[in-house]
Amino acid sequence: MKEEFSKRINKIRKHMSDNNVDACMISTTVNMLYAYGHVVIGYYYIPLEGETVLFTKKAATKEGISIRKPEQIPDLLLDMNIAMPNTMYVEGDVMGHSYWLRLQKCFPDTKFIEASLALRTIRSVKTDYEVSLIKQSARLQVEVYQSIPDLFKPGMNDDELAHEIEYALRKHGHLGVHRTFGQLEIFMGSLLVGKNAGLASPYDFALGGAGDSDTIPIGANGTKIEKGNTIMVDYNGNATGYMNDCTRTFSYGILPQKAYDAHKLSIEILQLFESYPAGNVCEDFYLKTLQIVEKAGLSDCFMGSVRQAPFVGHGVGLEVNEFPVLAKRFKTILEPNMVVAVEPKFIIEGVGAVGAEDTFIIGETNNVATVDLNRQIIKLD
Amino acid sequence: MKEEFSKRINKIRKHMSDNNVDACMISTTVNMLYAYGHVVIGYYYIPLEGETVLFTKKAATKEGISIRKPEQIPDLLLDMNIAMPNTMYVEGDVMGHSYWLRLQKCFPDTKFIEASLALRTIRSVKTDYEVSLIKQSARLQVEVYQSIPDLFKPGMNDDELAHEIEYALRKHGHLGVHRTFGQLEIFMGSLLVGKNAGLASPYDFALGGAGDSDTIPIGANGTKIEKGNTIMVDYNGNATGYMNDCTRTFSYGILPQKAYDAHKLSIEILQLFESYPAGNVCEDFYLKTLQIVEKAGLSDCFMGSVRQAPFVGHGVGLEVNEFPVLAKRFKTILEPNMVVAVEPKFIIEGVGAVGAEDTFIIGETNNVATVDLNRQIIKLD
Repeated sequence: MKEEFSKRINKIRKHMSDNNVDACMISTTVNMLYAYGHVVIGYYYIPLEGETVLFTKKAATKEGISIRKPEQIPDLLLDMNIAMPNTMYVEGDVMGHSYWLRLQKCFPDTKFIEASLALRTIRSVKTDYEVSLIKQSARLQVEVYQSIPDLFKPGMNDDELAHEIEYALRKHGHLGVHRTFGQLEIFMGSLLVGKNAGLASPYDFALGGAGDSDTIPIGANGTKIEKGNTIMVDYNGNATGYMNDCTRTFSYGILPQKAYDAHKLSIEILQLFESYPAGNVCEDFYLKTLQIVEKAGLSDCFMGSVRQAPFVGHGVGLEVNEFPVLAKRFKTILEPNMVVAVEPKFIIEGVGAVGAEDTFIIGETNNVATVDLNRQIIKLD
Repeated sequence: MKEEFSKRINKIRKHMSDNNVDACMISTTVNMLYAYGHVVIGYYYIPLEGETVLFTKKAATKEGISIRKPEQIPDLLLDMNIAMPNTMYVEGDVMGHSYWLRLQKCFPDTKFIEASLALRTIRSVKTDYEVSLIKQSARLQVEVYQSIPDLFKPGMNDDELAHEIEYALRKHGHLGVHRTFGQLEIFMGSLLVGKNAGLASPYDFALGGAGDSDTIPIGANGTKIEKGNTIMVDYNGNATGYMNDCTRTFSYGILPQKAYDAHKLSIEILQLFESYPAGNVCEDFYLKTLQIVEKAGLSDCFMGSVRQAPFVGHGVGLEVNEFPVLAKRFKTILEPNMVVAVEPKFIIEGVGAVGAEDTFIIGETNNVATVDLNRQIIKLD
């Protein structure tokens, strides 16, 4: 594991070196997990050269140097003969403004440089070990998704089926917690049925759903599952902290032809993504997708109906909405070991949502899904 | 409901007026729920006088004025003949530094004043309606806690029992999402058994537990429930977005006398809190508690063993760690309709954790627990 974390620190240092930054101070949970491997409430100081130093405010173990407050850090660094950096990466997007100001006061002569974006970019290309952790989460997810036909009982509403799936996920080792970047909130995932699938949510997910409460307006809302409805299941596998994102669509009874056609198109778009390996530009795949969808006459129900999500895929890892994003203006070039969830989804009026989602490991010559799981609509009864 | 939100806005305005602040701009989820009642990704402008204005970036409904970016706000306000404020409350603790800077650039002549602390203080005194929402969550919790003896099966480990409780909570209408302030993370709550109860966690909860993964180091960790262990169940009721916090302790078989004695003391401390109504100082109750615990010779196992939490209670509401805090240096005077969870807990070596927790509504003459639920250790078999 020491080698794994050296690798990650070196990736951060390469970015620092390329941008003439002397040090990086990590203090938010997701980046701490990335750079240090444990949740630590404190600060992780990464100089361009020399040893990294962990300062911990809430020591769960004997790790690092125990501090009460960040004001102690500069003197402790000087005691270790570590010079104050001229420039330092600090997580400006995630760290509260007050905490940034407080830390800046501790380093009055250091120029702070916003680093959340840099760290999200660094994290977008996974190590082989990180990929293996995502695949472990994917296996958990496959086991549970395969059991969904057994979990369904006629007469259920969306919440009731959701509870069965959540319970199964937990029993298979799902860690529960679901980390997101920014103002996204969700419980373990979403299950969308019938009309609710087309209802918008304020959150920036691919689809919405009204949710069971105004206080958490996303996903299932108590809709009874009727004959002719689809059930879209979009949970995250999380066995390791590194998540896998996967959506499958089920039908209760027979659907109108448009639903099958749109679902078939979704599968074709996933297949197309397999042949968009490293070297391709994120935006290009999104624009190509829009073309395909338009040609099929499905633009008005693609990625929502009331409100349409302006992307078709996103990175996955420690957070469910990582870089890169398959959307307009994202000129990011795909690189090997980026991990990207692609989720072309359609709203079919009177039916629900259709489409599949898979998480892909970007490769040199092709992209490979993390799961080998039937993408067709599965009929429940 | 209009009256309810007028009441809350007036509380915010009173604080603004007392501090000579012209406006308040809310943009983080919990305060948006408090001031507006829905999750809105956007900005809620509250001037000292005149109409409030909602700007929404992700319109789930037709609410508010749709914007693409905060840079549009000043012109839109001027179009409504709303003058730029000289001073404005902005949520500096929760809002990312980058977002604060961006908003400040939109209001170059306005002095921004950190308001997260003010808003947490305002939120600490609930309206009667908020209290009713907490009581609704409490009822959900009571139903499930009463069923725990039926959920337990000999041979279970802590995770297995936790999954049953979570599943029962969801089936009773628990919304799942668990909001916290700061760097706290937890799934739906914690279940602590045996030695794991004494293990520290980096998070600032009353007790820890190693958790099932380094990526979420809190709570159950796969400990088998053995004869002579306690099982401490500390979940949150959340039926409404407003949470109720409640802990009960179960025993598998018979415990050593020290466990019963410490648990009895915990109940006595809860009873004592009933007679610390409005007008009392938070710190005083904490210091009194420390005295009682010391007199009983239990100081070394109070609120943890490896690492001891430096508080005995905390506010509850939209977040699980609200104001006030029953801890040293908290000079806050209790007020009617503050809602405070009190959780005196002890670690008994070789046994686990004992103690009970209840959420109290602070009253003029006494404090009343939100649940009427046996506080004794309940024996499972």
